[in-house]
Amino acid sequence: MSFEPTPVSLGAKPQPERLAVAGVGNALLDITTEDHDGIHERLGLVKGAMNLVDLERAREIYSHMGPARETSGGSAANTIAGVAALGGTAGFAGKVSNDNFGEVFAHDLKSLGAEVDLAYADASIIGTGRCHVFVTDDAQRTMATYLGAANQLQPDDVGDDLFSRADITFLEGYLFDLPPAKEAFRKVIRTAHDHDGLVALTLSDSFCVERHRDDFLALVSEDVDILIANLGEITSLFQVATLEAALSAVEELGILTVVTYGPEGAMVATMGERHHVDAPNVPDHLVLDQNGAGDVFAAGFLYGLSEGADPVEATRLGAVCAGEIITHFGPRPETDLRALCEDAGLL
Amino acid sequence: MSFEPTPVSLGAKPQPERLAVAGVGNALLDITTEDHDGIHERLGLVKGAMNLVDLERAREIYSHMGPARETSGGSAANTIAGVAALGGTAGFAGKVSNDNFGEVFAHDLKSLGAEVDLAYADASIIGTGRCHVFVTDDAQRTMATYLGAANQLQPDDVGDDLFSRADITFLEGYLFDLPPAKEAFRKVIRTAHDHDGLVALTLSDSFCVERHRDDFLALVSEDVDILIANLGEITSLFQVATLEAALSAVEELGILTVVTYGPEGAMVATMGERHHVDAPNVPDHLVLDQNGAGDVFAAGFLYGLSEGADPVEATRLGAVCAGEIITHFGPRPETDLRALCEDAGLL
Repeated sequence: MSFEPTPVSLGAKPQPERLAVAGVGNALLDITTEDHDGIHERLGLVKGAMNLVDLERAREIYSHMGPARETSGGSAANTIAGVAALGGTAGFAGKVSNDNFGEVFAHDLKSLGAEVDLAYADASIIGTGRCHVFVTDDAQRTMATYLGAANQLQPDDVGDDLFSRADITFLEGYLFDLPPAKEAFRKVIRTAHDHDGLVALTLSDSFCVERHRDDFLALVSEDVDILIANLGEITSLFQVATLEAALSAVEELGILTVVTYGPEGAMVATMGERHHVDAPNVPDHLVLDQNGAGDVFAAGFLYGLSEGADPVEATRLGAVCAGEIITHFGPRPETDLRALCEDAGLL
Repeated sequence: MSFEPTPVSLGAKPQPERLAVAGVGNALLDITTEDHDGIHERLGLVKGAMNLVDLERAREIYSHMGPARETSGGSAANTIAGVAALGGTAGFAGKVSNDNFGEVFAHDLKSLGAEVDLAYADASIIGTGRCHVFVTDDAQRTMATYLGAANQLQPDDVGDDLFSRADITFLEGYLFDLPPAKEAFRKVIRTAHDHDGLVALTLSDSFCVERHRDDFLALVSEDVDILIANLGEITSLFQVATLEAALSAVEELGILTVVTYGPEGAMVATMGERHHVDAPNVPDHLVLDQNGAGDVFAAGFLYGLSEGADPVEATRLGAVCAGEIITHFGPRPETDLRALCEDAGLL
């Protein structure tokens, strides 16, 4: 056996890569079932919403759920998976447990090429968070989320590495349900702004907006550069009746805003201009599951912006990406998103 | 608050229900990825086969695998899930660990109405078994299986309850890779025959047959009433070149045999008569994943027999069930199997 000395590098350390988008959010496994006879309703879940549940209720809900399949999920994590699938450099920070679901969650992001900076809870104390997803025949999804380890995210769990290197730092509104996570939010925002990164926020859910309206309004006024919302969320945030009124409010704040309205498309508003973008035409019978559509819309939109696309082009990218997600079960892309966007002439 | 006494039952204890089919097999989670560029080959896996791997190799394989989705799997467990989905009374015995995957495995069978009699290993020592499934563009599946807790199945782990009540006891050939599980097999066979149940065996995989040919031949000659195999497995078992020669061998043994040959259908042989049954006509572009097709064929076939169907009718049921599984990813039914068979005029 011959001995070869380990080569010693004499050059400079390689520079850590710049990231297009880095996200922080709830790290969750999705447990998805088809709900043909309204079991979500009998379980008292608000249709179309994210219902937070404790462990006991999560177990009760799971015991009444039909056979399911498991995929990695979590709103911001779905967005980061989408950015990576588009070929963008991307990173995710969050908290899982050292159990099967935590392993699966980390694998699925890494296998797409995303950087992953996870904090780990002890599986003997708390498990990785999970989201029970009921998909009804109208392709709507109703969620019952047990946050588990994600619920324990503290400022110390979130390092500066990813967010100091990101063109865009992406925050998930759902994290606002957790007081210590709010502190983590603020830490990440400081890191991003200290390194000339932009901060993007998704409002996540209109019930989430109702729970935390004042916090969100403060955040949007002071810290956010890019706002992503659907129609229900943004009108709830500003307590107005119309998209126009909501857009006037954000325009006063001078932030880039995109508002999705399902199959009708999206409106992007910047510098006093507003542009509508159509959603891709997906025939009704091919629409299976809307879970993750908003998250992957955000992926296309933010990746486009990071690549220098103008906001209208970026919105088109988001719309094409969302069109892929709704044609299958689960919130992560299952076809080559980049190829899809290239075929649409957008990349 | 009013007080109502708990009603006291004065009648006889309810009789435990008769089961159409009870199965014993490897309890596994399937981790399924689409393999568009032949990664299974670069990982040294034999295409189309079940490759047994140890934990270290399983981790290496997983780290090279693309984003995946998780579903409950395991050959005999898929069959039992299929019987339950058809409306049959069914039970499953096997061994998992007390981890996320074990919880998911138990949930998915119970949620279909199957009885579940699982032994549990300690998750701090060994995890629930998992099968990494690579689905190539030709819809073939290549498997790398880490048996985990399933590998520890001992005779003491398998009670008599399910198998003393079963019309048909179903054994998975894959279990023959494990010496203590062979003992469990023999225990289950004794229980079944002591209670006038029939014993059915699936050969599982032609490499598995090669590894254990003598054991399988002894089992088929002495203990098995119903044999389920595909063409490669049964010709390997008898080391013959043609289906005809293999069927002559089983006919001498006087056991009911069904042999599947993929999209060309199946041949059922009983009492010296042989009948070919066509597979349902599924257009090529709708065939996504053959994983589980054989298992769910067995479900339709065995459920049909337990309901008093003649072997040809039972084979037709199996063929319709297999036709559903291949149109989606994952080895468990995703549409109403019973309705599908009713629509085909078979139930």
